[in-house]
Amino acid sequence: MAKSEYEYVREQERDDRLPKFNWIVVRINGCDFHRFSKIHGFDRPNDERPLNLMNNCAISVLEQFPDIVFAYGFRHEYSFIWKETTKFYERRESKLLSLSVSFFTSVYVMKWRVFFPEQELVYPPSFDGRVMCFPGPGARLVRDYLSLRQNDCHIFNQKNTCSWMLVNSGRTESEAEEYLEGTQESERNELLFQQFGINYNNLPAMFRKGSSLFRDQEDVTVKLDDGGNPIRRTRKKIKVEHSDLSRKGFWRWHPEILSD
Amino acid sequence: MAKSEYEYVREQERDDRLPKFNWIVVRINGCDFHRFSKIHGFDRPNDERPLNLMNNCAISVLEQFPDIVFAYGFRHEYSFIWKETTKFYERRESKLLSLSVSFFTSVYVMKWRVFFPEQELVYPPSFDGRVMCFPGPGARLVRDYLSLRQNDCHIFNQKNTCSWMLVNSGRTESEAEEYLEGTQESERNELLFQQFGINYNNLPAMFRKGSSLFRDQEDVTVKLDDGGNPIRRTRKKIKVEHSDLSRKGFWRWHPEILSD
Amino acid sequence: MAKSEYEYVREQERDDRLPKFNWIVVRINGCDFHRFSKIHGFDRPNDERPLNLMNNCAISVLEQFPDIVFAYGFRHEYSFIWKETTKFYERRESKLLSLSVSFFTSVYVMKWRVFFPEQELVYPPSFDGRVMCFPGPGARLVRDYLSLRQNDCHIFNQKNTCSWMLVNSGRTESEAEEYLEGTQESERNELLFQQFGINYNNLPAMFRKGSSLFRDQEDVTVKLDDGGNPIRRTRKKIKVEHSDLSRKGFWRWHPEILSD
Amino acid sequence: MAKSEYEYVREQERDDRLPKFNWIVVRINGCDFHRFSKIHGFDRPNDERPLNLMNNCAISVLEQFPDIVFAYGFRHEYSFIWKETTKFYERRESKLLSLSVSFFTSVYVMKWRVFFPEQELVYPPSFDGRVMCFPGPGARLVRDYLSLRQNDCHIFNQKNTCSWMLVNSGRTESEAEEYLEGTQESERNELLFQQFGINYNNLPAMFRKGSSLFRDQEDVTVKLDDGGNPIRRTRKKIKVEHSDLSRKGFWRWHPEILSD
Repeated sequence: MAKSEYEYVREQERDDRLPKFNWIVVRINGCDFHRFSKIHGFDRPNDERPLNLMNNCAISVLEQFPDIVFAYGFRHEYSFIWKETTKFYERRESKLLSLSVSFFTSVYVMKWRVFFPEQELVYPPSFDGRVMCFPGPGARLVRDYLSLRQNDCHIFNQKNTCSWMLVNSGRTESEAEEYLEGTQESERNELLFQQFGINYNNLPAMFRKGSSLFRDQEDVTVKLDDGGNPIRRTRKKIKVEHSDLSRKGFWRWHPEILSD
Repeated sequence: MAKSEYEYVREQERDDRLPKFNWIVVRINGCDFHRFSKIHGFDRPNDERPLNLMNNCAISVLEQFPDIVFAYGFRHEYSFIWKETTKFYERRESKLLSLSVSFFTSVYVMKWRVFFPEQELVYPPSFDGRVMCFPGPGARLVRDYLSLRQNDCHIFNQKNTCSWMLVNSGRTESEAEEYLEGTQESERNELLFQQFGINYNNLPAMFRKGSSLFRDQEDVTVKLDDGGNPIRRTRKKIKVEHSDLSRKGFWRWHPEILSD
Repeated sequence: MAKSEYEYVREQERDDRLPKFNWIVVRINGCDFHRFSKIHGFDRPNDERPLNLMNNCAISVLEQFPDIVFAYGFRHEYSFIWKETTKFYERRESKLLSLSVSFFTSVYVMKWRVFFPEQELVYPPSFDGRVMCFPGPGARLVRDYLSLRQNDCHIFNQKNTCSWMLVNSGRTESEAEEYLEGTQESERNELLFQQFGINYNNLPAMFRKGSSLFRDQEDVTVKLDDGGNPIRRTRKKIKVEHSDLSRKGFWRWHPEILSD
Repeated sequence: MAKSEYEYVREQERDDRLPKFNWIVVRINGCDFHRFSKIHGFDRPNDERPLNLMNNCAISVLEQFPDIVFAYGFRHEYSFIWKETTKFYERRESKLLSLSVSFFTSVYVMKWRVFFPEQELVYPPSFDGRVMCFPGPGARLVRDYLSLRQNDCHIFNQKNTCSWMLVNSGRTESEAEEYLEGTQESERNELLFQQFGINYNNLPAMFRKGSSLFRDQEDVTVKLDDGGNPIRRTRKKIKVEHSDLSRKGFWRWHPEILSD
């Protein structure tokens, strides 16, 4: 069995390193989760359990890959922002994509029981993924990308809430959809308030705003000195927030996250 | 919150459809499985349990994605051959890569307990992946690719067997490595036979040849007719073999697998 | 002036080598030749002079780049087929594209006076270009590509001939276009015959079929020996034909041109 | 001749649009100009005629393509900077590359006689080209790229001047090269001064610094009004300078050129 005669096929591998001076975003998305959420009995319109599981997986991803500086997720999608200068696996696209999506999936299955103690996994969930590059200094594009995702979160969640309120009050799914077709954001807010007494803005922020993950510093007491005084140290900790990313507020308080 | 002002970032997505008239190979590989196998107590030099788990996951992948026509794996890697004409997700590279690797990972974690009933998963295993394209008619390149993988399987397994035999008989890992450095294939066969009474060619084919997966037809009795005679039907079934892919034999018996 | 501080920008160059086991086609096309042909007084509907100039440039391209095995052109476009195994500039796309288009342009301008002795070049003509890859054995895709180009040549030329006949007989260009809209190939043949007495199939083949270039062997007398007998040698010569590429005939007589 | 059966090959064209939010650089380079300059009798070490021809071609390129905002050249290479937001041909790489290189070549051949009235073009000159992308706001990468090119100009020209001085005073080319091997910049300056009385910094700036092209505003008198007073208008004009691009000076005076 002469090895050399097959060696030539190795050359079919392409150079897939992503261009430098770009922030890299890996976005994963639950595959056919419409079906998955039905079969596994997710509450509608919103269920904290699967969202907490998603957030928990994302935290593990940030712990696993130090070059991910921020993550944002809602429903069954999550975006991971790799720092502009990362040299992880030479910035090879296939590596960044496959490792992110594989590790996320692995944690999702392993931790399922923690969040769904009563509900067995009926079949293996899977996630697809994609990679985008956002050039440079100032990270304006990355911030705009995140605003876009959060806007999609808002649009989806408001519609979804209306839809399920209508269904829970007796309409079929298609009747609810028909009812909502062409409605404006303000009309849907009105509908929730008038018909169901729901003030949309009072719903939990996690549903309305999605979840943002980032490393934050915290002061911790590591031990007491001989005199019994606390010795404090600064330590990085992954924090979950449900802030408004479209306002400049968040980034003003955390300029270091997307600094070049 | 005006949506339109962020819409422009959507355009950063690239067209990543793979070229037509090419067979597509997705290869996944266990990430840092040197450590993973140690921590989870895999037997050395060979352990059937993790190999059977890998094969089982690969079978699930073939069941999930009908356009995968063949798979070959050994150790902690698996190659999946998508048919030349597949239109799955428009042949988008990121979709094929992420879905394959995510689904494989998901099954791996879910089925772990079946193959390791006594051993908890200590941490989430993950797999990386890559995509290669092999043009054209006759699939000669794909067959040569598979021969290359099988050759790598052979080289690795023979060396690994020698190495662990030496370690099990008292040498340290680095002494074993030193002992084997520069040896030829035939010398290592000799070593196994002389020192340890092992005829390498008698070791289980799964270790030496890896595992090949493909759909095969089988005749099954679906029910009996009124006269008590069996009604038989042909049905596709995924078969696992440990054949020699470098010989033309296998492909001669299964020309339909890689037909255009 | 420290060099090193700028060296990092060199890394922005991407690897643009084209995949192996593919035939490479570079197609060039005259840029805004509608205007160019008007200003330089090309005869309508057909003019041999610019076509002969195009063919002459293409011959120079084949002489310059031995790895181009075939070329096909009509109007102001030309396709150059690089052999499947070419290693010219490591198959780098930008090199193949830029060198082909630059050399072609250079010859076009230099030889203009030979074909248009009475007509000065009013402004610099230019050509755009693109690169396509066609995988594999048998070159079926390349042949189909060439058939497609020849078919486009036929469709264009037949319509164009009708159009200018109508214009030459008194209609405006837009009236002619309107007149032809929605007509079938056979109707246009009929029109040419009935109204203008033209049998389309008797028009020069160069107009109807375009031009094919390839290397052919010819026997030549290189000198006479001492006895006065001719010493003959076989030599490669670039040949121009106006054959039908869609029939299998041409390729049957020249199987060596697109052999792998 | 059914068209449809070949239509499928059209799909082999790839989407080659360059990523947004990047400055695009097309660099062209004379192909084998070592030989070309010898055969066409270029003066050594420096000759203004071919440089003026190069500059003249580059001016034509800027006039032809309004989205090119800056160009820099020396010897037989020229870099063209397309503005970050250009939508020319949808930013398709093959179009930008081929059109730039083809138009440049065309002008080079057409204008040859103007700059070399005594010297016929012996054979068609050609240029290769490549495309690079430089992300983002502030254009720091583009400026560093230009500094790198200018630094290469300096290094080359200083060495080349030494080399030809040595050759002109009796050494062979290889002796001159040997003599210069391993010398530092300052040593070569010393050599020029001591042996040949040349103060390198007094050589023409075009040789030492290369040529920069950009659009500048100038006030022009377009006509006189009825009272005989000049009516002045601001108009863009392409300017050629031989400035130092590595100092911040140039860009401080021309911030608008590379503004986003």
